[in-house]
Amino acid sequence: MNITVYLAGQIHDNWRQKIKEKASSLNLPLHFVGPMENHERSDNIGEEILGEQPTPVLKDEAASKLNNLRTQILLSKSDVVIALFGEKYKQWNSAMDASTAITLQKPLILIRPESLHHPLKELSQKAHITVETVDQALQALAYIFDES
Amino acid sequence: MNITVYLAGQIHDNWRQKIKEKASSLNLPLHFVGPMENHERSDNIGEEILGEQPTPVLKDEAASKLNNLRTQILLSKSDVVIALFGEKYKQWNSAMDASTAITLQKPLILIRPESLHHPLKELSQKAHITVETVDQALQALAYIFDES
Amino acid sequence: MNITVYLAGQIHDNWRQKIKEKASSLNLPLHFVGPMENHERSDNIGEEILGEQPTPVLKDEAASKLNNLRTQILLSKSDVVIALFGEKYKQWNSAMDASTAITLQKPLILIRPESLHHPLKELSQKAHITVETVDQALQALAYIFDES
Amino acid sequence: MNITVYLAGQIHDNWRQKIKEKASSLNLPLHFVGPMENHERSDNIGEEILGEQPTPVLKDEAASKLNNLRTQILLSKSDVVIALFGEKYKQWNSAMDASTAITLQKPLILIRPESLHHPLKELSQKAHITVETVDQALQALAYIFDES
Amino acid sequence: MNITVYLAGQIHDNWRQKIKEKASSLNLPLHFVGPMENHERSDNIGEEILGEQPTPVLKDEAASKLNNLRTQILLSKSDVVIALFGEKYKQWNSAMDASTAITLQKPLILIRPESLHHPLKELSQKAHITVETVDQALQALAYIFDES
Amino acid sequence: MNITVYLAGQIHDNWRQKIKEKASSLNLPLHFVGPMENHERSDNIGEEILGEQPTPVLKDEAASKLNNLRTQILLSKSDVVIALFGEKYKQWNSAMDASTAITLQKPLILIRPESLHHPLKELSQKAHITVETVDQALQALAYIFDES
Amino acid sequence: MNITVYLAGQIHDNWRQKIKEKASSLNLPLHFVGPMENHERSDNIGEEILGEQPTPVLKDEAASKLNNLRTQILLSKSDVVIALFGEKYKQWNSAMDASTAITLQKPLILIRPESLHHPLKELSQKAHITVETVDQALQALAYIFDES
Amino acid sequence: MNITVYLAGQIHDNWRQKIKEKASSLNLPLHFVGPMENHERSDNIGEEILGEQPTPVLKDEAASKLNNLRTQILLSKSDVVIALFGEKYKQWNSAMDASTAITLQKPLILIRPESLHHPLKELSQKAHITVETVDQALQALAYIFDES
Repeated sequence: MNITVYLAGQIHDNWRQKIKEKASSLNLPLHFVGPMENHERSDNIGEEILGEQPTPVLKDEAASKLNNLRTQILLSKSDVVIALFGEKYKQWNSAMDASTAITLQKPLILIRPESLHHPLKELSQKAHITVETVDQALQALAYIFDES
Repeated sequence: MNITVYLAGQIHDNWRQKIKEKASSLNLPLHFVGPMENHERSDNIGEEILGEQPTPVLKDEAASKLNNLRTQILLSKSDVVIALFGEKYKQWNSAMDASTAITLQKPLILIRPESLHHPLKELSQKAHITVETVDQALQALAYIFDES
Repeated sequence: MNITVYLAGQIHDNWRQKIKEKASSLNLPLHFVGPMENHERSDNIGEEILGEQPTPVLKDEAASKLNNLRTQILLSKSDVVIALFGEKYKQWNSAMDASTAITLQKPLILIRPESLHHPLKELSQKAHITVETVDQALQALAYIFDES
Repeated sequence: MNITVYLAGQIHDNWRQKIKEKASSLNLPLHFVGPMENHERSDNIGEEILGEQPTPVLKDEAASKLNNLRTQILLSKSDVVIALFGEKYKQWNSAMDASTAITLQKPLILIRPESLHHPLKELSQKAHITVETVDQALQALAYIFDES
Repeated sequence: MNITVYLAGQIHDNWRQKIKEKASSLNLPLHFVGPMENHERSDNIGEEILGEQPTPVLKDEAASKLNNLRTQILLSKSDVVIALFGEKYKQWNSAMDASTAITLQKPLILIRPESLHHPLKELSQKAHITVETVDQALQALAYIFDES
Repeated sequence: MNITVYLAGQIHDNWRQKIKEKASSLNLPLHFVGPMENHERSDNIGEEILGEQPTPVLKDEAASKLNNLRTQILLSKSDVVIALFGEKYKQWNSAMDASTAITLQKPLILIRPESLHHPLKELSQKAHITVETVDQALQALAYIFDES
Repeated sequence: MNITVYLAGQIHDNWRQKIKEKASSLNLPLHFVGPMENHERSDNIGEEILGEQPTPVLKDEAASKLNNLRTQILLSKSDVVIALFGEKYKQWNSAMDASTAITLQKPLILIRPESLHHPLKELSQKAHITVETVDQALQALAYIFDES
Repeated sequence: MNITVYLAGQIHDNWRQKIKEKASSLNLPLHFVGPMENHERSDNIGEEILGEQPTPVLKDEAASKLNNLRTQILLSKSDVVIALFGEKYKQWNSAMDASTAITLQKPLILIRPESLHHPLKELSQKAHITVETVDQALQALAYIFDES
């Protein structure tokens, strides 16, 4: 039995890479998907496909359409979602994806520093579990397969 | 035919009051619901009902349970959701409620200043419409009932 | 028991008015909803609320957001949908609304002249019934309440 | 992870072949399905299986049953839908299939020439993205798999 | 709290009338709906609305469309379904309506003589309860409102 | 806006009466439903309607059918569920009803003495909130209507 | 792409064997499932597993539980349902399974002799297509895979 | 066709091992999943991942989050659920998991000694079948694959 994991959250550092490597070193049957991690390309993908747009707002609209297309397809094929929040990048997108998962009855693992407990308290209650590190999130997934 | 509207977003000024008054002056058959608008009580409701909690995190957890209970019941009885975002209060809760509505196939009206177009571009694409003022959101609702 | 009926289709003549009057004369407990029937306003509603748009495409985008908001709210509150197709106005919107209804397991009554049987054959098969006149559609609704 | 794509739209030229060849040349893990592309057989399939029908309308009814059977099975197994509209073939079926996909929360990529923006404005708003060429639609799908 | 009850089953005697009168004499807050009970009209309703049909099969097809329209609308507005089977009228329609209710998670009360226990054993297992008389079915509904 | 509350749990004391009286004294727009509270009748209802059964197991089966019929109808019409667990009556039925509510995305308020925290820890996590007294459960419901 | 087909209907002759052999000779990627075809075992399976039952009704109840378990699991894994009705075996079970499929939005192919058109007219309207022979049903499935 | 089976119930003896061995010896295409069977680890998993908790209640809360995460993921990937109840371990969790399965329309096989028929009578009615031994439950699953 394989489990597909959508990794929601900021795309400014390599936290996804770390979680993938650790899962691989533990031989866990996990398959990871997520958003485009190249931030610049994520912002430009609308113009890349649809051509130059007349205003920054329209450039953003075009990009967001492609990003939403990617997210919806990959999220719908996932069994569980990990959403990471950090001090620096407090993205609404992460809350949006996390809430979509919960409403679709897909389990959610929330990663956030304790310093963010107050603004994330309602989302944290909706999550299956809230942890503080990427390692803890992976331990939670590993537990699904443990036999003893 | 009456329409119930959930008003998601910050609870630091009286934007909900303004929308209710205008709807009333226009005789629109709208019924508004939303979160507890007394911010202090919203933060303290957990301890008010469950008693003093040992730590601030646990106080927050207790409060968030009551706030989520209220939101889920009222959101499930609503026909449409308005979510307001502002420069000052960039709440993840608003994104969470907005995304819940969309996933449940309830229409979403997003209110945000144009200055926030970039961080909200993906949520804006999921909304039925994005406007910049409370008045515009109410005009959108009024249009549902117009006959000519 | 009241039944709410969404009237999808062209907005260039008064077919909705005729169906409402006949239902009223028969004292049927039917409540009718539908799109904005003032065509010009339907096309301009985006600019009316959001202000002038830089291009005709963007004007259309703005209008369609408001029209979709109205349709989704009213369709979700309806028990049955009537979709009218005619020689002159072969709107894709009517097919879109009809198909939405069917997918949501809401019954569909299709009205079309026999001359359109070929291009509408697949949609007609999905409908609960296909008739040729507005009167027949109303007779079908009346039958729901007949006791003998 | 493979993605299944339903190709809705006219069956009068080889646009599906072009999209399949390009996907193949890019080694994208896409599997394409769609309606019967042999127009004559699509029109005759009812009589082919059920025998000669007494009238053209009944011949059409018989054919549409088989075409709907095929569409529903293949659409239900798809992850995303591409619907192509053109100047020449303004099929209601394409709008019907596109709307079915959206209502089932399957993403929709709409292809249409800009000249059709007005009659397709509401469907375009429901789509995840609207493009003008088959190549752009394939680029949108390729983006789902890109890592950087 | 009112409860709407769909009465599925044969339309050859007045069992529905008896159940309605008894509910009324007990002042139960029940509202009953069901199919057209005038058998001849039920068979002719297609031609009544659509005009004379060329063959008996097509007459039947036309009638069944109207009967299905009525059933789907009324069943979708019901809270519980009673389906009556008898020695004489072994209608597939009753099994069809009963199964629709169960699949939609609406409770089903099955009425059948014990002599039919073998051919109805699988449907009986799916029902919430199987009884042998109309009176017992009404007692089951009355129990919902009893306070002691 | 009225809210319907299903009161799940033991039927051996008058906790439901207390909650109803308090809600009434506070003028809360709450409507309460629940199982048959007369324990003896709840156990005998199968034989009351279906006649004497040959064995105690069959008597139980008959009774449970009626109790499930009542629960499913009333639960499906409720907006929120309160489930009470106590030291003395550790009913599986309460867990069953509570879990049904959660799976249907209806909010759950769990009442249990702290002494039961260990065996109820997984159910408690699924609940929107866990409290220890009937009064606290009612306060939670009252909070839904509070404006400040 | 493989398609799983549930074969509902009587178990008194080898119609399922014929359809499987023909599908195999045509190399169609179809996988067939269905009820226990050994009639005697289907009737006795309850006692086989649960032991001798005190009455014929209870023997039937026990058997029907196992048959329903099998049907629900296999039907839920199917993409399409074929239901066969014949002069001799007018099983309510076939109507029950056919209606379950339709309500779950799984396509239904109905096989029945024309002589049964009247009692099956409503179910026939709900089916995607009604044919008269097993061969026609298989042709309908083959059409799903045809490319020209 | 493989079938995935979730084994709900107590984790104090090796009943799951027995069912797996027997399925294996019969070459049944069954894949079994279930909760963590190491009771001590199941109770400690919260502190294992999140670190020491200040109180036993909080230790329980932490553990239950991980156990619920595991259950929801594995249950959602299962085709059928077996829930075992025994004299000694009358866990509410088993009733919770059983009820979740039923509400999601996944079939339930209940195993319980006859001595527990009274307190489990309502849950037993919701199950597809109630048996008394692990062997009988496996026979029920084997029946799904039997051809004669």
